[in-house]
Amino acid sequence: MSKHKRQMNLNVFLMNVGHHEAAWRHPGTEPQHITDLGYFTRLARLAEQAKFDSLFLADILAVGKNVKHGAALAGLEPFTLLSALAAVTERIGLIGTVSTTYNEPFHVARKFASLDHISKGRAGWNIVTSGSDIEANNFNQDAHPEHSKRYDRAAEFLDVTTGLWDSWEDDAIVIDRESGTFSEGAKVHEINHDGHFFQVRGPLNVPRSPQGYPVLVQAGSSEDGKEFAARYAEAIFTAQQTLGEAQRFYADVKGRLGKYGRHPDELKILPGISAIIGKTEAEAKEKEQELHELIIPEYGLNQLSNMLKVDLFTYPLDGPLPELPNVEEINGNKSRFQLVADLARRDNLTIRQLIQRLAGGRGHRTFAGTAVQIADELEEWFTQGGSDGFNVMPPYLPEGLEAFAEEVIPELQRRGLFRTQYTGSTLREHYGLNRPVNKFVNVPLSRVSGV
Amino acid sequence: MSKHKRQMNLNVFLMNVGHHEAAWRHPGTEPQHITDLGYFTRLARLAEQAKFDSLFLADILAVGKNVKHGAALAGLEPFTLLSALAAVTERIGLIGTVSTTYNEPFHVARKFASLDHISKGRAGWNIVTSGSDIEANNFNQDAHPEHSKRYDRAAEFLDVTTGLWDSWEDDAIVIDRESGTFSEGAKVHEINHDGHFFQVRGPLNVPRSPQGYPVLVQAGSSEDGKEFAARYAEAIFTAQQTLGEAQRFYADVKGRLGKYGRHPDELKILPGISAIIGKTEAEAKEKEQELHELIIPEYGLNQLSNMLKVDLFTYPLDGPLPELPNVEEINGNKSRFQLVADLARRDNLTIRQLIQRLAGGRGHRTFAGTAVQIADELEEWFTQGGSDGFNVMPPYLPEGLEAFAEEVIPELQRRGLFRTQYTGSTLREHYGLNRPVNKFVNVPLSRVSGV
Ligand SMILES: Cc1cc2nc3c(=O)[nH]c(=O)nc-3n(C[C@H](O)[C@H](O)[C@H](O)COP(=O)(O)O)c2cc1C
Ligand SMILES: Cc1cc2nc3c(=O)[nH]c(=O)nc-3n(C[C@H](O)[C@H](O)[C@H](O)COP(=O)(O)O)c2cc1C
Repeated sequence: MSKHKRQMNLNVFLMNVGHHEAAWRHPGTEPQHITDLGYFTRLARLAEQAKFDSLFLADILAVGKNVKHGAALAGLEPFTLLSALAAVTERIGLIGTVSTTYNEPFHVARKFASLDHISKGRAGWNIVTSGSDIEANNFNQDAHPEHSKRYDRAAEFLDVTTGLWDSWEDDAIVIDRESGTFSEGAKVHEINHDGHFFQVRGPLNVPRSPQGYPVLVQAGSSEDGKEFAARYAEAIFTAQQTLGEAQRFYADVKGRLGKYGRHPDELKILPGISAIIGKTEAEAKEKEQELHELIIPEYGLNQLSNMLKVDLFTYPLDGPLPELPNVEEINGNKSRFQLVADLARRDNLTIRQLIQRLAGGRGHRTFAGTAVQIADELEEWFTQGGSDGFNVMPPYLPEGLEAFAEEVIPELQRRGLFRTQYTGSTLREHYGLNRPVNKFVNVPLSRVSGV
Repeated sequence: MSKHKRQMNLNVFLMNVGHHEAAWRHPGTEPQHITDLGYFTRLARLAEQAKFDSLFLADILAVGKNVKHGAALAGLEPFTLLSALAAVTERIGLIGTVSTTYNEPFHVARKFASLDHISKGRAGWNIVTSGSDIEANNFNQDAHPEHSKRYDRAAEFLDVTTGLWDSWEDDAIVIDRESGTFSEGAKVHEINHDGHFFQVRGPLNVPRSPQGYPVLVQAGSSEDGKEFAARYAEAIFTAQQTLGEAQRFYADVKGRLGKYGRHPDELKILPGISAIIGKTEAEAKEKEQELHELIIPEYGLNQLSNMLKVDLFTYPLDGPLPELPNVEEINGNKSRFQLVADLARRDNLTIRQLIQRLAGGRGHRTFAGTAVQIADELEEWFTQGGSDGFNVMPPYLPEGLEAFAEEVIPELQRRGLFRTQYTGSTLREHYGLNRPVNKFVNVPLSRVSGV
């Protein structure tokens, strides 16, 4: 094993009882514990023992019509959970989703700076613009704002939050008891942002945090989403079904960084993978079938109808998809719509087959096989220009994570593709990302005003 | 010690390095640790060993002009900190301040429900309306909204959050794997709130938490503040300088509960006390003097000028206060303005003397003496209709908390006035408060719509 071999970044995406939509019906899962810190502590420590770069929690600002049949959407607010997990873990990165559409940048900058302090430099932010009217309805709005407007707001949101994270220079706090100087006023800056969506004076009320900024993660893959990622993001979660698609996406996004003065290495591309692991391929397929048999068709139909913006309840389950709207008409998750439409067409799937294909990862790549087979696939994507690592999405918990940690990761380690020990202590160090330079430092003219 | 003696409720109000404005200059404090979870973990565990009902963190949504001379305003976002503390404590209540003026009720309901789950029933919310233009300036507004408008918004905010906390009935989740029923749709309710400030559909995306609602705390003492407390609050933090004032306040607020169909015991009144404890009275006074000598007059002048809305820098420090504005003109903290104006007049204080009197607790009662003396005072207020307990505000940390825990609390325990062991496990149980009845239960007609 060469020390200098390029290393994968592995994030684990924890979803209550797992990513498979029927996971809660599987006898090995613990749906009674989805609001229990002890349960998530076990999972986080397991991931940390396996040396994952980070764990990640998604977020949706509403509960859908599906509470009867599922556990995916109701549970703990992820940021609150992450902060508690910071207290019971030591090295693993902690990535939380926060929407720029239904939040204020001052609050968001502040809580990520705080999490970064509390975790000693392990915070990451998955920046999303949210996807549905039911979220809008919880925030005084009748309808979800239009896709490109959301990305405009997201861009300005990032300008404000990065300004706030820079508003305290690293050496602003001096604590000179003798002279009575707690901090140097000239190193604490108002930002006086006055933009289209936001007016924010600053400074932030949190001193600069260990990482400067949390690691900025993005998970949109539409045209606007890719452009946003190229400009701001340091890691990108994405759903890709085939190596070819992954390679095209990888080249496309990396190719956009130059125009923002960024190097391709400054953005890590992490496709999702939902893997069922068996001692033999047959055992893995059996486990997969077992999960599929627990699917409740209404649940899948509802999810799919929402995603495709067509009421599928009126079509036969064993027939083909009806005509779909044009991607331009989709205001939610454009890239996922496209992926699912392409998948159904390419593999000529009935509605029932499509539900099964999506059940394990909602459009992310699914896999059932041995640890060696899955390691082969990951290695191929990683070495053939398809990814910088992966977003590991255990289909059912805790078993799916245990299997990945105990069988796949050691296999990747044997191949020299993944760390056997943490070498850094911050999430930026795990991902090999630079600490951002403070924009107020060495630029005395841009100092707005000391306070 | 009689088992049936009425018991005090004691909350500890932790402020970075302590409440005295010069605490950070005291050699015993740790201003270098104000963003360090380990530091707050030590304090929280100390308070828990002493059997405090709860610990409390204040919040201001801006940093003032005073960063040069002080540490009070810059640090960790309190809610993020509380969640981390939930993971490292077991019994003590965790009360966080969140403003209703600069937040959305869906987010707030959600994070308190989550904290309540994570802490297994130990969450409390100090409901504030915020006090200053500098906070408004971080949230797209030129000026802080008018006092009574803020309380109108706060009232509607509470209607929404309590609705959301009730939106899942306690037994909504059934987890019947066999039939595929995760939760009973008819027990999960939209709230369809359509009011003056907010439109919120619900349901919340967090199942009902152990306490139903977090303990609702309020800390405003103006006319509007008292009325709001009488209607919604279960505990009230208040600044009272003398027993007479405390008794009037106590009788006034308790007397307002009846018209909301509430019993006086459903609201606990907790005046603040910032105490310096010595082996002898002389030693305590010496410690107090030591702290006062560390005061930086500019810092105090700035605080006082903001509070009184007069620029005091242009008046002699050793002269009297100038003419003050009328309380009607105060849009921030009306009750504190009144308290300070009354105090200066009553004791005929110069500006310098007033700064010293306020330094230890910003208007809260301060005290320097032995453990027995302070216990005598607390007992008197508690038994003479001045309070149901206290908001203990250590002037400097960790020493001020250690002294209270090791000397005053045992003295109160000897007198049978305070628990020696926790008997309950939730914050409601510590305070002797009922768990709220879910408004959707047993009132089938008000069920808005199952989802
Ligand atoms: C792995 C992954 C995780 C995501 N997590 C969230 C999430 O937690 N909340 C959310 O609102 N959207 C989430 N998304 C959706 C995207 O952030 C984005 O909103 C969506 O892809 C639509 O953007 P697009 O139209 O630019 O593709 C996620 C996407 C991916 C690939
Ligand atoms: C012990 C105590 C703690 C308080 N903490 C906060 C706080 O953290 N944030 C805040 O904005 N106001 C805080 N306040 C102020 C009150 O919530 C309230 O806004 C203020 O008293 C003005 O209300 P009033 O005009 O009704 O008195 C606190 C007050 C007291 C007595």
